[in-house]
Amino acid sequence: MAAARALLLLLAALGPAAAVWPQPLRQLSPPAAARCPLPPGRFRFSYAAGSAVGPGCAVLDEAFQRYRALIFGAARPAGEARGEGSGRGAPTLFGICAERVTVCGSPAGLETFSQLVGRDENGTYYVNETEIVDFPRFPHRGLLLDTSRHYLPLKAILQTLDVMAYNKLNVFHWHIVDDPSFPYESFTFPELSKQGAFNAMTHVYTASDVQAVIEYARLRGIRVIAEFDTPGHTLSWGPGAPDLLTPCYLGKDPSGTYGPINPILNSTYQFVTSLFQEVGAVFPDYFLHLGGDEVDFTCWKSNPQIRAFMEEMGFGEDYTKLESFYIQRLLDIISSLGKGYMVWQEVFDNGAKVRPDTIIHVWKNSPPYKEEMANVTKAGYRALLSAPWYLNRISYGQDWMAAYQVEPLDFTGSPEQKDLVIGGEACMWGEYVDVTNLAPRLWPRAGAVAERLWSNATVRNLQDAYVRLASFRCELLRRGVQAQPLFVGYCDHEFDGF
Amino acid sequence: MAAARALLLLLAALGPAAAVWPQPLRQLSPPAAARCPLPPGRFRFSYAAGSAVGPGCAVLDEAFQRYRALIFGAARPAGEARGEGSGRGAPTLFGICAERVTVCGSPAGLETFSQLVGRDENGTYYVNETEIVDFPRFPHRGLLLDTSRHYLPLKAILQTLDVMAYNKLNVFHWHIVDDPSFPYESFTFPELSKQGAFNAMTHVYTASDVQAVIEYARLRGIRVIAEFDTPGHTLSWGPGAPDLLTPCYLGKDPSGTYGPINPILNSTYQFVTSLFQEVGAVFPDYFLHLGGDEVDFTCWKSNPQIRAFMEEMGFGEDYTKLESFYIQRLLDIISSLGKGYMVWQEVFDNGAKVRPDTIIHVWKNSPPYKEEMANVTKAGYRALLSAPWYLNRISYGQDWMAAYQVEPLDFTGSPEQKDLVIGGEACMWGEYVDVTNLAPRLWPRAGAVAERLWSNATVRNLQDAYVRLASFRCELLRRGVQAQPLFVGYCDHEFDGF
Repeated sequence: MAAARALLLLLAALGPAAAVWPQPLRQLSPPAAARCPLPPGRFRFSYAAGSAVGPGCAVLDEAFQRYRALIFGAARPAGEARGEGSGRGAPTLFGICAERVTVCGSPAGLETFSQLVGRDENGTYYVNETEIVDFPRFPHRGLLLDTSRHYLPLKAILQTLDVMAYNKLNVFHWHIVDDPSFPYESFTFPELSKQGAFNAMTHVYTASDVQAVIEYARLRGIRVIAEFDTPGHTLSWGPGAPDLLTPCYLGKDPSGTYGPINPILNSTYQFVTSLFQEVGAVFPDYFLHLGGDEVDFTCWKSNPQIRAFMEEMGFGEDYTKLESFYIQRLLDIISSLGKGYMVWQEVFDNGAKVRPDTIIHVWKNSPPYKEEMANVTKAGYRALLSAPWYLNRISYGQDWMAAYQVEPLDFTGSPEQKDLVIGGEACMWGEYVDVTNLAPRLWPRAGAVAERLWSNATVRNLQDAYVRLASFRCELLRRGVQAQPLFVGYCDHEFDGF
Repeated sequence: MAAARALLLLLAALGPAAAVWPQPLRQLSPPAAARCPLPPGRFRFSYAAGSAVGPGCAVLDEAFQRYRALIFGAARPAGEARGEGSGRGAPTLFGICAERVTVCGSPAGLETFSQLVGRDENGTYYVNETEIVDFPRFPHRGLLLDTSRHYLPLKAILQTLDVMAYNKLNVFHWHIVDDPSFPYESFTFPELSKQGAFNAMTHVYTASDVQAVIEYARLRGIRVIAEFDTPGHTLSWGPGAPDLLTPCYLGKDPSGTYGPINPILNSTYQFVTSLFQEVGAVFPDYFLHLGGDEVDFTCWKSNPQIRAFMEEMGFGEDYTKLESFYIQRLLDIISSLGKGYMVWQEVFDNGAKVRPDTIIHVWKNSPPYKEEMANVTKAGYRALLSAPWYLNRISYGQDWMAAYQVEPLDFTGSPEQKDLVIGGEACMWGEYVDVTNLAPRLWPRAGAVAERLWSNATVRNLQDAYVRLASFRCELLRRGVQAQPLFVGYCDHEFDGF
């Protein structure tokens, strides 16, 4: 989103520097910073004169209301909230210090501002004078949720989008379907979820759910990139899509089990074209994530028709060629739909011809991901890093630190190669995660990835990060987020939503 | 509790054997088991004729109401709930199958019964004919919560007690104070929590909170054993108890920091006597947990008065002798108060003379806990196992299996030694746990420990346990418990309390 990449300039307020997460590019306060009180009843957000946008810009109008509620909570006087955004001009914050409190930019600037607001012992809200110049280091700062291994209710996804915005994460990678279940309700192929969801009534995303996610995200400066992973990871597609999957054989007879998508039938490509036509229209982002990872060749190898096709095509015993044959046709279909694509690294590793604007998603740790980052960018493709950020993999203690210490550009390559790294994504795969443990497992751990992708490469001090992240986590509790503790201690406002 | 150790005899109902967690000693259903419908409007719990207890027994009267609500949930007709417990005789369940549905025993029997109730496709509640004989393998089946490293609100403790009862765990080990904070409001020494709690207003347990925990637990067949760990783990006691802790020295001068309780002052023992007088009265269980673990000698070694005392006593350089000197006096004080005690294994390891009825709590893994179990029981003391059940230590994947596969009696020793193992406790230490992640980290993982301590030693099949535990976890969700998933899948009733 353009908004999240804009320069933020905050002329606000500060005494002892208020901790902001993720840390801004530059944050200064004068030696004798003025303290500016913010009485909830008189405080207004409004657009500055000369702004490129003004009232009617839904993203900012609604962000004004949201951040007023976040900052003042129950202290917001009834009926006051609707006053926001009725002025004119560039997005500007006016407290009672009037022109001295100004923010140019985007909802991300409002988030920064909200983190600067303090409350003194008398309950008075204030900001201390400070100047912030901010800009994200990487444009793609994502979070992957997996709604196939466990279904996540709509409300849990929306809550996650809220917290992503608090962390200035701006891409929701929706790994919506996979082997275990197909919760996406397709209007072209309604049988997919009818047969493939855990429960076709209760464990599905309707068209209106999907629209709600996309719009909720948009208002928070977050893109939604849907992943429909093929040709592997598709077992749940089988019951609702006859002949789509490869029948596996035991000796000379079908065993009754199925493997990856059957790449040798024309009907497969007709199906894929229709499905992605729908998906490409439903998800407005230019990019689709096409998956392409972990294709198991066992079933293909067992199937006599597949083996005959391999021989016919001269693929020998190299099933990666068959995989690339499928992928190549898929990529051409997506291109013909006018969409761009992201793929997991195997697509690149196996030598499929991808378009120059393809994003290669690096997720494997063997070979070491740094080698893959070097190879992908050397080949001239854009790279997106997730390998060190599989946050579903938990360990005892402060494991956010390992995620935090990653340096995405720490690989052998030219400056031009480094420029091809567009960012990264924290991944929360769903084998052991559902709505019961999603929030505490994500937050504040995913915040470590968020700061790595937003802040300057030099922002790496663990002690300093600990202090700011612990403080940010307390703010998350105040906002109702079930974020787990970093270590021993307490917050003034503990979590009470249980 | 006598109740939880009683023989349970359930004549209820079953077709395909209903999964019960923890698995009963014996569960049989006839080849053609009758299905007995349970219409919520007509179903009654009542006491059987000839029962040792009858209406007015609060534990059973209230359990009847609780389990009616748990079984039928919203289906309970308004005004019906109060009808329970108004009959006479031994605790008996009457469904519309009348005398054919009978339970003798305790709230634990009601729990078993509640797990046998199913609901068919028409929404009709039923039990299938079955016979259950049940009895716990070990009498002490505990769970430790740590309310010092993070404060846990009263409501979270009560919710935990509910789920303990569902798992037939019967001892709540309340590690109430420790180095980081002192949330227990003492009426003898109010300064302890005023100075030592994270927040003396919001992060404390008042006398009424403590009473609420004890009574809530009692009604669920759960004992509350409080731990006031000394002489180490007491840093939070210092600010509210002048001269209690040992001043540490840097060279010839006090450094301003403090170490363990000062064992060389008479005032220490006056304080300890008064505090435990109060604690022994507040917590009615015969046993107190006195801690005694991990005493760091650095501070004692730095202090010239302590060193002089060591010389005077002829302890040489052996500070374990000083530790045992303190512990010995503490144990004598507790005995004089008419209470029994549990201690962490170091007290035994260091050779303190403990009473024959002392429970030695085995928690260390080096040396291997099996050696310690052998040593403790060889010396004739009762042993309680926690070493393999530190559930705060998480790892990726199905780590409940390791907890489940523990066999508490798998150590070298005579049958008489094995008889001295009274059970075990799952421990949830609080370094990384507070109310935001307590429930998903505990449940259903602590259920693995619960079955190990309740069911026969031969109940060890992991596949079978997986199926029953996954099913039990779905039932926990239905009851509103934020229990995390074991693996990929779904429940008909997902968690919706977020």
